[in-house]
Amino acid sequence: MDRTEPYYAVIFTSGRTEGDKGYADMARSMERLAKEQPGFLGMESARETIGITVSYWESMQAIAHWKQQTDHLLAQKKGIADWYSWYKVRVCLVERSYAFEK
Amino acid sequence: MDRTEPYYAVIFTSGRTEGDKGYADMARSMERLAKEQPGFLGMESARETIGITVSYWESMQAIAHWKQQTDHLLAQKKGIADWYSWYKVRVCLVERSYAFEK
Repeated sequence: MDRTEPYYAVIFTSGRTEGDKGYADMARSMERLAKEQPGFLGMESARETIGITVSYWESMQAIAHWKQQTDHLLAQKKGIADWYSWYKVRVCLVERSYAFEK
Repeated sequence: MDRTEPYYAVIFTSGRTEGDKGYADMARSMERLAKEQPGFLGMESARETIGITVSYWESMQAIAHWKQQTDHLLAQKKGIADWYSWYKVRVCLVERSYAFEK
């Protein structure tokens, strides 16, 4: 994801409940859907004890639009009911970045 | 990590090279050291295909201070030499957050 600052990052940290209950399918489907949204720039994920997903967006408007997307709203509801024991969402302005590559 | 916005987040994403080469020891030691720094608020990590570590700070000054901390500088050098195939650091202003807990 190469993009000049400023842009936005949404840091989604979470704890999962026991069992899959359709979680893996939903996660793949939400990633596909996010990529189709206006203003989407990229997404990175890892899960060990906790899960961290960071998605990157052109603007606050793009983030607000994605939050209200119909299928995503359904996933948010099911997330609270079935998949997560907790989560936290942080909306951030990316002010600067630097990178290293071998 | 409960803290009212605004505060800062440093998103560190990385790819590892093969083998441990002292990486796990360093990671634990850097986490201990970060916690002792002025302005440190919290840290969250997960690694699967890529690693994501997010650390939280009171101010840009606290982040600059941590970046220049002597042992941390050594770890950064060794990180480039031995541990990482790539990394990216993003410095972000956390503007708002919301949470869910069962």
